[in-house]
Amino acid sequence: MTSQELFENIRRKKSFLCVGLDSDIGRIPGFLLDKEDPVFEFNKRIVDATAPFTIAYKPNVAFYESRGTTGWASLEKTAEYIRNNCHDIILIADAKRGDIGNTSMMYAKAFFEGRSFDAVTVAPYMGEDSVTPFLSYEGRWVILLALTSNKGADDFQYLADSGIKLFESVLLKSSKWGSIENMMYVVGATRAEMLGDIRKIIPDHFLLIPGVGAQGGSLEEVVEYGMNSRCGLLVNSSRGIIFADSTTRFDRVAAEKAEELQQQMESHLYNRGLLQ
Amino acid sequence: MTSQELFENIRRKKSFLCVGLDSDIGRIPGFLLDKEDPVFEFNKRIVDATAPFTIAYKPNVAFYESRGTTGWASLEKTAEYIRNNCHDIILIADAKRGDIGNTSMMYAKAFFEGRSFDAVTVAPYMGEDSVTPFLSYEGRWVILLALTSNKGADDFQYLADSGIKLFESVLLKSSKWGSIENMMYVVGATRAEMLGDIRKIIPDHFLLIPGVGAQGGSLEEVVEYGMNSRCGLLVNSSRGIIFADSTTRFDRVAAEKAEELQQQMESHLYNRGLLQ
Repeated sequence: MTSQELFENIRRKKSFLCVGLDSDIGRIPGFLLDKEDPVFEFNKRIVDATAPFTIAYKPNVAFYESRGTTGWASLEKTAEYIRNNCHDIILIADAKRGDIGNTSMMYAKAFFEGRSFDAVTVAPYMGEDSVTPFLSYEGRWVILLALTSNKGADDFQYLADSGIKLFESVLLKSSKWGSIENMMYVVGATRAEMLGDIRKIIPDHFLLIPGVGAQGGSLEEVVEYGMNSRCGLLVNSSRGIIFADSTTRFDRVAAEKAEELQQQMESHLYNRGLLQ
Repeated sequence: MTSQELFENIRRKKSFLCVGLDSDIGRIPGFLLDKEDPVFEFNKRIVDATAPFTIAYKPNVAFYESRGTTGWASLEKTAEYIRNNCHDIILIADAKRGDIGNTSMMYAKAFFEGRSFDAVTVAPYMGEDSVTPFLSYEGRWVILLALTSNKGADDFQYLADSGIKLFESVLLKSSKWGSIENMMYVVGATRAEMLGDIRKIIPDHFLLIPGVGAQGGSLEEVVEYGMNSRCGLLVNSSRGIIFADSTTRFDRVAAEKAEELQQQMESHLYNRGLLQ
């Protein structure tokens, strides 16, 4: 998917919502547990219900990996289901991978060849040769951690060398490894006050913004400081949508929560002149 | 496993060798490919042949994950085989994981509950709450990336805030999150010149040292600058051992390569007075 196709999807669906599939088997509705693959069944119903309001799905790989081969089977079925049933979706593996070159190449293979994800989140600590193997796949994306939403972001990401903070160095250097057609960045909604500075470094890249909802980030601030002329934002909500209800109506309630966010996003897109 | 048990294993086996199971199905001997699970069969033979010279095995998760559920099944069988057949081995998942707290907890569950690894490699970029979930398992270890062996280590790991380099900040802060009983650090053998400075910050921790062999690091330098009074080193070799031969004798040749390293390590342990 190109950045222009992504922007066109955003305009057509009037949404820049990414739904995070952090599908913890300990939290899905109990009545699903006697299905053959409860997590896949849960994801399928969530996707069917929320797809009209969504431009991206983001399975959080840890929640599948925690269950070994069984969990990986659920992840593979989920990816295949989304691929076959949603033609205007960017499918993100939230995996936070990254290793020496020959090993990152194997991770890229895992998500881009074996399973047909469009994008994978990558950690920057190991530098260029840990990231570039993911960039060798035409039409696929690296979403590199820049400034994360959690408290631990304060430990290292703000350390400054010659006045340039670590997350700023990550943006400055890594934006030369790829282009706006194959790199995005993770910036937590809880760090919205930094989005203005970040946009000075990377005005045109898309950003994946977690932390709206359960983690306390504000959509208004994210839009105010982070939106650009092609939207440039994928705002993720996970628990606030997928676990909003635990009855047999969980998928309908998830759709309502997704639509609430979509409606707010639609207003912001109109206000910024990106919809007419 | 405690650090003292690890040191006792090192003395009994006169070795601080970790064998990396980067078991790429594209590189294993062709005659194994008609086995039901070629990668597991390869690992089993490598383990049977090299165990006398080895104190740690380190499956590189990427090489399994690249093959999806099939690969994860090989990984699970390998871990179980090592667990059941090698009683003096520390089993390391080389996974470079790390995410927000509730997600790192799922990764910890994947490796410490679902599969019985003793240790997992973790990336530090997201800070304390991305690491501590792994530390809640008694007797298990986090092996945190500090200074890696690859070229990309130069991109961010040497950036200095107030004269303290990023990898030094990682050591200084993270060593307070756990103890010498549940944290080790990755320091590349190709960065041996920094080991002296690193030992000033963390004199007593065990270090996992990749990069000897295919990546060009020197065992002599690693020992000179990195060894402490309880050895404090796990030196990894992957490709140089497991892919040294591609005939039906691959396991015997792997054992010879492992024994060569073990013999060098034995000399170093004697010279340092850690064996009598």
